[in-house]
Amino acid sequence: MLKKIHHLGYAVEDITAAARFYKEHFGARVGEPEEVEEQGIVATMFDVGESRIELLEPTHPDSPVGKFLKKRGEGFHHVAFQVEDLHKALRELKENGVELIDEEPRIGAGATRMAFVHPRDAHGVLTELVELPEDRER
Amino acid sequence: MLKKIHHLGYAVEDITAAARFYKEHFGARVGEPEEVEEQGIVATMFDVGESRIELLEPTHPDSPVGKFLKKRGEGFHHVAFQVEDLHKALRELKENGVELIDEEPRIGAGATRMAFVHPRDAHGVLTELVELPEDRER
Repeated sequence: MLKKIHHLGYAVEDITAAARFYKEHFGARVGEPEEVEEQGIVATMFDVGESRIELLEPTHPDSPVGKFLKKRGEGFHHVAFQVEDLHKALRELKENGVELIDEEPRIGAGATRMAFVHPRDAHGVLTELVELPEDRER
Repeated sequence: MLKKIHHLGYAVEDITAAARFYKEHFGARVGEPEEVEEQGIVATMFDVGESRIELLEPTHPDSPVGKFLKKRGEGFHHVAFQVEDLHKALRELKENGVELIDEEPRIGAGATRMAFVHPRDAHGVLTELVELPEDRER
């Protein structure tokens, strides 16, 4: 059911400094930062194999990533797995009693359909499921 | 320089329960748990695309994963990126002033060569670099 790791989300205090770290030391080709207003973040990303790393800096301290940083500091925030059929996956998880943050798909960055599984059930890992538009590989 | 995400390590309290979660709800084909005595863990893994998820349960509370669980609870522990030439990567990182946990490659599970970059420099993410033996894809 899980096709690949679509991306890892890292919460950072300073997206410019974090992007520079991965550019300078790991040769990452990091894109331009973009604001995602409804999530209260500025995000940028780079490819690693078939996956991506997304760097996430909060635009205000009360956003979910802002609260995360305050509580836990910089670091891993979530993993996103690509699935074939998100609607079916969510229905099955719900039927099996798995706690979901999003019971219906939401539209995420780049017109992907996405939903979060609650970390309480996923052994502490905030887990996103992503379904890509048919014409997209990433 | 980073070829792919080789694996993600998740720290869990109960490897049997965590393996069951991924088997039952995500169809993961989870291997048999194996003890890695020098790291003080029992580990098992499953493939997701070109990457793997490793579930790590400490065998005693004073092991690194045991201390992690006590401090932070269950969840994401580390990411491992595959590199072509670990020795060269470590030399360059060191020359650039990046703080390393392992300045020389260690032998990890499955005869891989591996080393950890310190999370202080890697924006809070415990980051492993892995070089595979020539005849291995994983």
